[in-house]
Amino acid sequence: MSEIQLIEHLRSAGASRDDVVVGIGDDAAVVEIPAGYRLVACVDALLAGTHFPETISAYHIGWRSLAVNLSDFAAMGAEPRWATLVLSLPQADDDWAVDFARGFDALARLHDVALIGGDTVRGPVSISVQLMGVAASDKILLRSGASAGDDVWVSGFPGDAAAGLAVLEGRLNLAATAADYLSERFLLPTPRIALGQGLVGVASAAIDISDGLYVDSGRVAAASRVGLVIEMERLPVSRALSESCEPSEVMELAATGGDDYELLFTARPGHRKAIESLAGRLNMSCTRIGYAIEEQTVTYVLESERWMPSHTGFDHFAHRSGR
Amino acid sequence: MSEIQLIEHLRSAGASRDDVVVGIGDDAAVVEIPAGYRLVACVDALLAGTHFPETISAYHIGWRSLAVNLSDFAAMGAEPRWATLVLSLPQADDDWAVDFARGFDALARLHDVALIGGDTVRGPVSISVQLMGVAASDKILLRSGASAGDDVWVSGFPGDAAAGLAVLEGRLNLAATAADYLSERFLLPTPRIALGQGLVGVASAAIDISDGLYVDSGRVAAASRVGLVIEMERLPVSRALSESCEPSEVMELAATGGDDYELLFTARPGHRKAIESLAGRLNMSCTRIGYAIEEQTVTYVLESERWMPSHTGFDHFAHRSGR
Repeated sequence: MSEIQLIEHLRSAGASRDDVVVGIGDDAAVVEIPAGYRLVACVDALLAGTHFPETISAYHIGWRSLAVNLSDFAAMGAEPRWATLVLSLPQADDDWAVDFARGFDALARLHDVALIGGDTVRGPVSISVQLMGVAASDKILLRSGASAGDDVWVSGFPGDAAAGLAVLEGRLNLAATAADYLSERFLLPTPRIALGQGLVGVASAAIDISDGLYVDSGRVAAASRVGLVIEMERLPVSRALSESCEPSEVMELAATGGDDYELLFTARPGHRKAIESLAGRLNMSCTRIGYAIEEQTVTYVLESERWMPSHTGFDHFAHRSGR
Repeated sequence: MSEIQLIEHLRSAGASRDDVVVGIGDDAAVVEIPAGYRLVACVDALLAGTHFPETISAYHIGWRSLAVNLSDFAAMGAEPRWATLVLSLPQADDDWAVDFARGFDALARLHDVALIGGDTVRGPVSISVQLMGVAASDKILLRSGASAGDDVWVSGFPGDAAAGLAVLEGRLNLAATAADYLSERFLLPTPRIALGQGLVGVASAAIDISDGLYVDSGRVAAASRVGLVIEMERLPVSRALSESCEPSEVMELAATGGDDYELLFTARPGHRKAIESLAGRLNMSCTRIGYAIEEQTVTYVLESERWMPSHTGFDHFAHRSGR
């Protein structure tokens, strides 16, 4: 398979959008941005063996490569529209490319994202997706908007994806139902685009917790120049996770496990009803797990004691202790 | 050096622009698009050993990673504004990152491009830059606009960069002056942004000849559904190149050598004066090398005979015979 054939496999992936003036096939792509909107853009690179196990299917890699970027858009409350893709493969592999394109396509269509450009190189399996989209000029969620007195919320059930990864890597043996649920939380992450958009005007700050609650809550605190108190007893834990591990391991996974692609956000207490109602409409879980304080320290509290994780997060250039 | 330190090195690279609402440091970047403009975007990945020799400096790699994308913008007549970067490095290397950032920065400032996002992974040296910018809604150069009767033009001196690469790789031994000139044409390509913008409304089609004149002229012909006749005697050849190689080798390099990042474009004969005047204002060479015909074949003619190259181009997934 040549580069041209590979691009042919990929060019049909993703939604078709009326606002794409020039798509794949010229020197650059051209799209329409409606008046009153700003451009939002992010990029995330995934490397086999570092960001996902080499054993997962090309379908799941295709899904994931877009999901991680959609999750960044969710955290901004922005609307994704267009993506470009850089694919590195060790050799031409038709089946792999078709399967990858199917996974990318499935998630792209769910969120109406068109693939407008790309490039391929030969090398270890890695994928970079850049996602572009829009936000109304006055509507954006930043990490920096939290104030003392705000509630801290988290969507979904942090820790599930990390437990799912442990299942996939054979480090955790569970009954089939729990194993399937947790594995799928790792393999098919569901970026919270609708939640992020619903939180615009409600949340004061937001971030996606792809590097784990502990690390990412620290980023919100630093950007907002506030402290956070997180009450470990409040952390939402899925039944599959709580039944699968010792309580201390559950705490560790929920606080530090990455790859969940859920949102951590802050909001004034007056917005509690609005947030619960939004979560209900979206048929998902949003849980209040703590509050922001003036003193600029982040404290995780368990049974009135300060709790510290045994390892804290994920630095792509440092040793990844958790995996 | 951690990922965070590496990003710190890079975040100061590039121009600062007033239209960047949110730059590096949140989940995504946010920029202003003026009313009446469309978004233009492209992405190019460079892999050490494939797209450039592993021996060139990080400075030149930084310059190049942006240059290849700027050249795509030149071919669209578009205005570059913002870039994101994915950097893969085998190990943390402070000196390398500083030197890379300097090279990226130097070219970014020349074209007022701000770096608004990025990601780093550990792997073989490779760099993906996505470039974003704008074009007025009715002003864009495509590959598909050529008509029979149009002139075919090329900017600069194709073949110089390929000869420069041969010098750098020790395959061509030249006097210092010619060696320096040709090496620099490879190491510090000069994307033709001002030419591309000047050609909007003048040229009927344009492409950048990064894969060589022969391959890229074929792409314009295919997209425009015309044929092209290229007269080899007309190909502009730099003095350094013509004095360095046998005439047949010069022809081969000029027609098939890649990495020049010059523009091939077509225009009605009535625009000849305008093009010569534009080239004069930009203090650069634009040369008429042929014409478009109805019959959909691309013919390179030398001394009234059809000329065929001994190898034709560059497919990232095929064997790269020329290097």
